[in-house]
Amino acid sequence: MGDYDLNIIFRSDVEVELVKHSANDLDVVFAARVSTRGENAESVVSGKEASGLINFLMRERHGSPFEHAYFTFRVKAPLFVWREHMRHRIASYNEESGRYKELAPEFYLPDSERKLVQVGKTGAYEFVDGSTEQHAITLVQMRQACERAYHAYREMLAYGVAKEVARMSLPVNIYSSAYVTMNARALMNFLSLRVSAPDSAYPSYPQREIEMVAEKYEQIFADTMPLTHLAFVVNGRVAP
Amino acid sequence: MGDYDLNIIFRSDVEVELVKHSANDLDVVFAARVSTRGENAESVVSGKEASGLINFLMRERHGSPFEHAYFTFRVKAPLFVWREHMRHRIASYNEESGRYKELAPEFYLPDSERKLVQVGKTGAYEFVDGSTEQHAITLVQMRQACERAYHAYREMLAYGVAKEVARMSLPVNIYSSAYVTMNARALMNFLSLRVSAPDSAYPSYPQREIEMVAEKYEQIFADTMPLTHLAFVVNGRVAP
Amino acid sequence: MGDYDLNIIFRSDVEVELVKHSANDLDVVFAARVSTRGENAESVVSGKEASGLINFLMRERHGSPFEHAYFTFRVKAPLFVWREHMRHRIASYNEESGRYKELAPEFYLPDSERKLVQVGKTGAYEFVDGSTEQHAITLVQMRQACERAYHAYREMLAYGVAKEVARMSLPVNIYSSAYVTMNARALMNFLSLRVSAPDSAYPSYPQREIEMVAEKYEQIFADTMPLTHLAFVVNGRVAP
Amino acid sequence: MGDYDLNIIFRSDVEVELVKHSANDLDVVFAARVSTRGENAESVVSGKEASGLINFLMRERHGSPFEHAYFTFRVKAPLFVWREHMRHRIASYNEESGRYKELAPEFYLPDSERKLVQVGKTGAYEFVDGSTEQHAITLVQMRQACERAYHAYREMLAYGVAKEVARMSLPVNIYSSAYVTMNARALMNFLSLRVSAPDSAYPSYPQREIEMVAEKYEQIFADTMPLTHLAFVVNGRVAP
Repeated sequence: MGDYDLNIIFRSDVEVELVKHSANDLDVVFAARVSTRGENAESVVSGKEASGLINFLMRERHGSPFEHAYFTFRVKAPLFVWREHMRHRIASYNEESGRYKELAPEFYLPDSERKLVQVGKTGAYEFVDGSTEQHAITLVQMRQACERAYHAYREMLAYGVAKEVARMSLPVNIYSSAYVTMNARALMNFLSLRVSAPDSAYPSYPQREIEMVAEKYEQIFADTMPLTHLAFVVNGRVAP
Repeated sequence: MGDYDLNIIFRSDVEVELVKHSANDLDVVFAARVSTRGENAESVVSGKEASGLINFLMRERHGSPFEHAYFTFRVKAPLFVWREHMRHRIASYNEESGRYKELAPEFYLPDSERKLVQVGKTGAYEFVDGSTEQHAITLVQMRQACERAYHAYREMLAYGVAKEVARMSLPVNIYSSAYVTMNARALMNFLSLRVSAPDSAYPSYPQREIEMVAEKYEQIFADTMPLTHLAFVVNGRVAP
Repeated sequence: MGDYDLNIIFRSDVEVELVKHSANDLDVVFAARVSTRGENAESVVSGKEASGLINFLMRERHGSPFEHAYFTFRVKAPLFVWREHMRHRIASYNEESGRYKELAPEFYLPDSERKLVQVGKTGAYEFVDGSTEQHAITLVQMRQACERAYHAYREMLAYGVAKEVARMSLPVNIYSSAYVTMNARALMNFLSLRVSAPDSAYPSYPQREIEMVAEKYEQIFADTMPLTHLAFVVNGRVAP
Repeated sequence: MGDYDLNIIFRSDVEVELVKHSANDLDVVFAARVSTRGENAESVVSGKEASGLINFLMRERHGSPFEHAYFTFRVKAPLFVWREHMRHRIASYNEESGRYKELAPEFYLPDSERKLVQVGKTGAYEFVDGSTEQHAITLVQMRQACERAYHAYREMLAYGVAKEVARMSLPVNIYSSAYVTMNARALMNFLSLRVSAPDSAYPSYPQREIEMVAEKYEQIFADTMPLTHLAFVVNGRVAP
């Protein structure tokens, strides 16, 4: 067995960067006005009119005017987050490939704020703090498992085994990067399911790590489309 | 029966305007590179490298990198064109509503260049010029039918009948406007089916009027993403 | 101008026939159980367990288990209904083609129960009965416009004009048939938007004629998946 | 550290079972005939007529008539296969959840027929047999990494750590089960990309393990819709 300096990095965060977007509140207004004004949809809009119309659309679940606003993100997160993320089908993805690229030794570890213990019933778990011992066990076990797995990966690669085979024993907390493009309607659906929002009409129970991605999305969404975001929140965080 | 000045407009064109876009060839390159480079996808790209990579993706049908480029159009076309257009489901639409808005009296008429006579078999019709008499009959019949229908519409409205009812006897050549948003992959699929391209690997047999919309889309696509458009054409106009 | 016996049929109904389906409540249960039981998802299910689990899924908006149940309908309805129907993109369609087939002279007319007058504001119209005069005007105007339009159609065909051109002046109340396939999740979304359900949490304001189609869908849905339909109704007619 | 009998199972296969379907060649014919015959789409069809029409649709890329035929599979495969499978968005999934269920210790190992060494360039790798030493290294490294990871999983669970946390260090070759529903058009797209078919017009380069799933799908498809499958193969394995 070889003796490598694996240089493994353990981290506890996710990265979300806005690559580009074509999103602003006025586009929602113009798209919605086509219904009632036809080709003369665009003209001056007061802030109050925009706010009122967007709120009406959200409340009445007229979702299509929100589909013309697009966001492209670059996201770095562990595989177990991507597994959940890619269940959202109204989105476009290009992810780092373990078939074509040697995967870097970066692994997710829960930090001390990550609640480790679940209580309650299936589908509506709540999480509470773990004990010091539980945190210690988790860190030790995960670190050792990741180190053993990455060692195996490097060993197979060193012997000339194909990347797509060698990666098979890598764990789901290894990091991977992807381009993600979603429109504002799909993004609101994502947020409604992936941010817990315990006070909302429909609380969700996302795993904390995908919620960390969703929170960063939501901040960017709120900065880019403030009226739309406000209407989303005010109307119970239900996607139109 | 009332006596209206209907002010009917007959025309033979379609309108396509690019409202906004987030589309350029480099985004395709960056999205594709994520697979092989991960988070370091963006850096300087030579024109030759971009051209080569885009051509490779198109030829090998790796379609996902083309999904991050978005176009929003405002289109004005007859209803019978919209009926075909909206069969394309990977797109977002907001169309003028005959339920909420009084529809303007604008109707499509084939002009003298529109070939009126079909030959050949179902699914692969070819069209040939009509005779002078056929053109004359077509114009007369269509004009009279449109005038009669629009008169009926106005008459019902004048008597207080709801717009959604009164519109029922309006013909499918009445014009309607809509916002249409599509990504570059969906747009290429549209072009592959809605531009005839008789010399391509897979010739299509679109109705001429939706082809007029498609030709305007294609011009905008070629101007915005010239390398992607070239690769589309060179590789047989098959969407990846 | 030719002198035809046009044999025009006016009618006021829509047709919906269940062609085939792969839908039953137990499939929802089995699909949902995969999450918690893995490969041993199938075993005996009591009616009470099925009912409870389906209600839980509906209430918590876990929609994916409802996607494995499929319905294929054959529907006959006026074009203006199809225009709204095909805005539902999570569905498969094959419709009668006016390019390939001579369209039969069947046209929709509102019957005496169809409320003709709208009151209230855009997006939330209510409809009230029309007067005898309004009904009379509507019938006369529509009949004459349809007859004039169908005459024009036949005249152009008689002169050898292509079907795809001749149909341009046919009105949107002409009937057309299509195959429609939808899964139960998409169907519930359709019902939530196309049946008015004034007492539900989110009342909708569909045009009456698409509601007539939706009501027939709902009856078939209730017969085929009674537990799922009940949970849909009990939980406010919101699609999961 | 605890001392468990982990009872780990290593295997080299995938499981595909047809749960239900609503698929047969005649439905394609009936759906396609709606275009040209309208409501009278169904009547006796000769085998020759069906074969000819299906071949025409495939060749001319008229894909929509293939969307009314549905397949529901139960599939058991390693996570790295699911990661690729779920990139196919025109499909419905319900997968075993590591958040709700303790994951069983079943892991994929390449068997002696799995070619371990890749040659050629990115995007078009070919695979050749590995040496005896390469196979031995692969088995030893993978087994040890899996055992270490599953031990960590059990250890964290024993200390009361939540399942969704404990699973983070499990490798991507652990098995998972899911329900998968796809229509015949989406299935053909899957087959065109996930079966290598080196002699076809567009050879693909799938990872062997997802190809094993695809081959089982294809056998079921060929048994259920033989005319459609034949037309798919004859027309270059390009999805319509």
